[in-house]
Amino acid sequence: MPLLKPISEKNVTGKVKKIFTEIKKTRKISKIPNFWRTLANDPQTLERTWRSLQEVMAKGSLDVLTKELIYVAVSMTNSCEYCIRSHTAAARKKGMSEDMLKELVAVVGMANETNRLVESYQVEVDEFLR
Amino acid sequence: MPLLKPISEKNVTGKVKKIFTEIKKTRKISKIPNFWRTLANDPQTLERTWRSLQEVMAKGSLDVLTKELIYVAVSMTNSCEYCIRSHTAAARKKGMSEDMLKELVAVVGMANETNRLVESYQVEVDEFLR
Amino acid sequence: MPLLKPISEKNVTGKVKKIFTEIKKTRKISKIPNFWRTLANDPQTLERTWRSLQEVMAKGSLDVLTKELIYVAVSMTNSCEYCIRSHTAAARKKGMSEDMLKELVAVVGMANETNRLVESYQVEVDEFLR
Amino acid sequence: MPLLKPISEKNVTGKVKKIFTEIKKTRKISKIPNFWRTLANDPQTLERTWRSLQEVMAKGSLDVLTKELIYVAVSMTNSCEYCIRSHTAAARKKGMSEDMLKELVAVVGMANETNRLVESYQVEVDEFLR
Amino acid sequence: MPLLKPISEKNVTGKVKKIFTEIKKTRKISKIPNFWRTLANDPQTLERTWRSLQEVMAKGSLDVLTKELIYVAVSMTNSCEYCIRSHTAAARKKGMSEDMLKELVAVVGMANETNRLVESYQVEVDEFLR
Amino acid sequence: MPLLKPISEKNVTGKVKKIFTEIKKTRKISKIPNFWRTLANDPQTLERTWRSLQEVMAKGSLDVLTKELIYVAVSMTNSCEYCIRSHTAAARKKGMSEDMLKELVAVVGMANETNRLVESYQVEVDEFLR
Repeated sequence: MPLLKPISEKNVTGKVKKIFTEIKKTRKISKIPNFWRTLANDPQTLERTWRSLQEVMAKGSLDVLTKELIYVAVSMTNSCEYCIRSHTAAARKKGMSEDMLKELVAVVGMANETNRLVESYQVEVDEFLR
Repeated sequence: MPLLKPISEKNVTGKVKKIFTEIKKTRKISKIPNFWRTLANDPQTLERTWRSLQEVMAKGSLDVLTKELIYVAVSMTNSCEYCIRSHTAAARKKGMSEDMLKELVAVVGMANETNRLVESYQVEVDEFLR
Repeated sequence: MPLLKPISEKNVTGKVKKIFTEIKKTRKISKIPNFWRTLANDPQTLERTWRSLQEVMAKGSLDVLTKELIYVAVSMTNSCEYCIRSHTAAARKKGMSEDMLKELVAVVGMANETNRLVESYQVEVDEFLR
Repeated sequence: MPLLKPISEKNVTGKVKKIFTEIKKTRKISKIPNFWRTLANDPQTLERTWRSLQEVMAKGSLDVLTKELIYVAVSMTNSCEYCIRSHTAAARKKGMSEDMLKELVAVVGMANETNRLVESYQVEVDEFLR
Repeated sequence: MPLLKPISEKNVTGKVKKIFTEIKKTRKISKIPNFWRTLANDPQTLERTWRSLQEVMAKGSLDVLTKELIYVAVSMTNSCEYCIRSHTAAARKKGMSEDMLKELVAVVGMANETNRLVESYQVEVDEFLR
Repeated sequence: MPLLKPISEKNVTGKVKKIFTEIKKTRKISKIPNFWRTLANDPQTLERTWRSLQEVMAKGSLDVLTKELIYVAVSMTNSCEYCIRSHTAAARKKGMSEDMLKELVAVVGMANETNRLVESYQVEVDEFLR
């Protein structure tokens, strides 16, 4: 059970209702996921987070799939189950194949290993990297 | 200062020498970075890590730049300075522009925020994601 | 299932019994939580942890609610479910309102984001902060 | 050295200049800290982060000092030096005494210990906490 | 549910079958654990991970039990439930007693506390340690 | 520079002096390390931490070297430079050879990799491990 009960779509009005409608339209989904329904307890955080995500995840120099893969990689490193599941689903919608997922996981694994090797030995930054 | 002194290229023989030559040829660099010179204290780990990285970072369903961006994203989440610097440099060589770097950082930041929002509220995985 | 079975209150004697009694009296609770019942497998760690917590969480320059909020913030950053739930409950007992909880979560989220922005760019400490 | 050079106050125009002016006025400081000068390389992230922080850190049910202490606690748990230094300085401005700092650190330490004790033993959430 | 379905032992052929046989023989177990069955979706990662683990966990200057205890300590610090359970079971097979487990957890707890005390105060490395 | 200035050995009296004397005697060192000198700003935390460490790190079912190796492994996983350096030095005093250090680092690296593989795929705990 979450700390705060997810708000039911039926009960929302005003700002929250507006954002829920926007989420469903933008994401082409018919049900609001638990994350947004939980944030709806705090409309200000709901709005800020939704607006920020729209801005950050929009196509730019990086395409939307690459951004989503990065999101998944961070979520895997932080071991956030909900985030791994929801952003993996999003990445699949945007074109991630099963092979891409496997390669992503392999890179995340290796990066976490070498990050620790570097820190364990306290390797100094090379002069040509400063 | 690192825990173990990086091995000088001049002093290497056998397996380490072979891998150093391979690293310079594959990466098209003239000097061995501190990471590999430090691992050279433990030739088995040097060889295993180099072989594994070659395998994991090779072009597959994901191109080499995308893999490198994922590597950087993990390193940023783990706050590993050496790793951020060396893999950012590698990503630039493979085509990462300044704008791509800025977007990458913005995604890493947002993902770390929403990961914590999810865990803080202990949001439950949606049924359609199970 | 935990790695070690929680000790039943009925079966305790000596040092563990004494601490269990103290916990119930101090916390004004009638049942010993699983955390303490699990630590009871290792009476020395049970005693040390209980004594340390009493000392650290006592009213000082910071009031007991502020200390509890800090405890929750750390637990959220570490994604420790048990810790989030038990210390959120404790914070509520000490006066945390639903609005305070929402603001706490929002701060924890933002701090985790900007922590990563700082580390991603490797921002240098300002001279006036050294 | 940071990954992107901090932007000099002298060279800014438009949106960045406006935000720099706002930062100096709101914070009552005469120089822009490196964090904001580095983010200025990415005006969109600069603006979003500044606006979000203003919103999140404003006085609400929690006073501004308590929010700042929570920010510091997260930064300490994440071992972010820049963040610890800048938010400790901010907390002092808002009234944090040396004794409060010491108590804060002691709570952060204990919370990190018990978080790991809980996870190490895989303690189950008590029924009355669900 | 895992992101990729564990591969059934009945359905494997070729490289995966060979490694499954090796795992059962080396570990003296009759069923392949979910970790290896999940990795079997990506035979290259399965093989690399199994070979690397065999190399790293082999008796060397450190005996196999000490290596396993270190593995558990890392898994506890990362709060990885599966890893804690599987490596605790492995450690027990290699001779870890209940008392050793309790002492291990106590050390992991203390180390996580003092790590944060050090970082919170930004303690400088002593000259004699450089 | 640390957040609080390390207390000079010359200026201590009372409880702090007593503990400093105990540290030097127990550890057979002539100078108090920065960690303890910094904690001396908060005598209560100094005393509690020193007493707790003595208790936790004492020879038990695990010998003192194994405990120290576990301490180092946690510190490496948390990337705490001061902790890695001081506990590596302590481990060397207690008998850790260079080969043992290399094997320790290799295990820490692998454990961090497989921890992430497990979490990335959300591998389910095997029934025989519950």
